[in-house]
Amino acid sequence: MPQYHARVYVTLKPSILDPQGRTVERALSHLEHANVSGVRVGKFIELRLSGERAEVEAQLRDIAGNVLSNPVMEDARWELEEVALEPA
Amino acid sequence: MPQYHARVYVTLKPSILDPQGRTVERALSHLEHANVSGVRVGKFIELRLSGERAEVEAQLRDIAGNVLSNPVMEDARWELEEVALEPA
Repeated sequence: MPQYHARVYVTLKPSILDPQGRTVERALSHLEHANVSGVRVGKFIELRLSGERAEVEAQLRDIAGNVLSNPVMEDARWELEEVALEPA
Repeated sequence: MPQYHARVYVTLKPSILDPQGRTVERALSHLEHANVSGVRVGKFIELRLSGERAEVEAQLRDIAGNVLSNPVMEDARWELEEVALEPA
């Protein structure tokens, strides 16, 4: 069965305040990085799925959009890549 | 002054256990996603920097490797992209 490596990026929607990002930004400005702005902190999730591509894509869409992210506040983006298996 | 958009990906080193990833994996297997394995949860941070490219790169290397990640347990990877400013 083909194996896939998926990367999911979860970010807060642009209209949602990001207190964690603001805190990082303030910390950086105290560390002589005053030219940094617009810090937004999101999640990056890696997973492996086995199955046929079409099914895995549908499944990943559901996992990324409904399990790993909160669709009210967050956007989810994902990439899928087939993993080459070594010949038996 | 040029503006840059940076994306930083922070992941646990492969040898470090990821209890959050294990929990996600177990939750997924209860949600009829039993073909998912190897879940690893990391951070995805976006920021904006202004300055000259060489300086911004050195600065970002320091921020990603020492502020946004813990170099003992985590790996940090980053991308830098110039932001096109509209003509004045």
